[in-house]
Amino acid sequence: MAFNYPNGRHFDEANFNKPIKKSASQSNRGMSLESDLNSANQYYLTTNRAVIHKKPTPIQIVKVNYPARSAAKITEAYFRQASTTDYNGVYHGHYIDFDAKETSNKTSFPLKNVHEHQITHLKQVVAQDGFAFMIIRFTTLQETYVIWATLLFNFWDAQNEQRKSIPYEQIVKHGVRVPMGINPQAPYLDAIDTLINQL
Amino acid sequence: MAFNYPNGRHFDEANFNKPIKKSASQSNRGMSLESDLNSANQYYLTTNRAVIHKKPTPIQIVKVNYPARSAAKITEAYFRQASTTDYNGVYHGHYIDFDAKETSNKTSFPLKNVHEHQITHLKQVVAQDGFAFMIIRFTTLQETYVIWATLLFNFWDAQNEQRKSIPYEQIVKHGVRVPMGINPQAPYLDAIDTLINQL
Repeated sequence: MAFNYPNGRHFDEANFNKPIKKSASQSNRGMSLESDLNSANQYYLTTNRAVIHKKPTPIQIVKVNYPARSAAKITEAYFRQASTTDYNGVYHGHYIDFDAKETSNKTSFPLKNVHEHQITHLKQVVAQDGFAFMIIRFTTLQETYVIWATLLFNFWDAQNEQRKSIPYEQIVKHGVRVPMGINPQAPYLDAIDTLINQL
Repeated sequence: MAFNYPNGRHFDEANFNKPIKKSASQSNRGMSLESDLNSANQYYLTTNRAVIHKKPTPIQIVKVNYPARSAAKITEAYFRQASTTDYNGVYHGHYIDFDAKETSNKTSFPLKNVHEHQITHLKQVVAQDGFAFMIIRFTTLQETYVIWATLLFNFWDAQNEQRKSIPYEQIVKHGVRVPMGINPQAPYLDAIDTLINQL
């Protein structure tokens, strides 16, 4: 869900706890994969293909005002750390779970884009026989891939001994590219279908 | 997630848009099923039995302050209407989805406790072969049941011609009672197991 301050300044939900020092282009890039996925999810929902939603950002509410005859207004609240990934749902009886990340890197996906709690959650999903993925967009290359979370785990678990990123070639080799679509723009379920059919 | 105002007053997340006129006992009752389910989910997660989380409350953020050297503070935000149920996750490869409701009624579950968007979502889940339930607690009777969402649909879809509630006897007959537990207090997956095994 993209939103803006009343003055039109872009609010970057994914980077709320960092000082705003990024260029406008980087911020927009940060929202566009999310925006594409939200559109795709809406399309899949409308066409009865899947029921996948982005989870709301967890927020700790401290103060709420109840003005007469208008909506409750939250006047003090803080962002909380999520304990899961951002997206989950059901597709043809399969439990689907993923997070989505963008990198401007052209040769690898840096693991610093991923948080420990996301890995923990994706491993828990795999242990329950859910289908766990990571969707990665190389913004400079304008290429988007879906990989099994297990590929991510391999690199994550070895990052202290080996490299701290997943090489682009590995993602191309083991992942499936999301085709460029029109409606939806990022038909990522086509890539997930390919991965599932390879099982 | 139960939380309180700094003055200790209870904030009832489920009823944020209603004026606060309820007695304290009703508010506490409103949170206790949620609290029991959150504890159960934590227990199931820790014991690797299931990965089921409550979704955060969707909030529209309007203004955020970034004080130097401290956490971002949201100073204006509003509750948004959810588009799904509150709980979902994966259990033995099954996609699980449910909402949880309490009633002080002793003879039936009034359908006014359920929102149209929750019915729509649960029907979408069923269409994708997910497992959709409603967990109902009769607070006066101190009894909690899990029913298939399809039982709820039957009464929901007929409420303009017939009664606007599900009779207690129907819930007892077609649902499965959640046993009273210690750890967790509401081991609702035992009831879900029974329902799944009846398929």
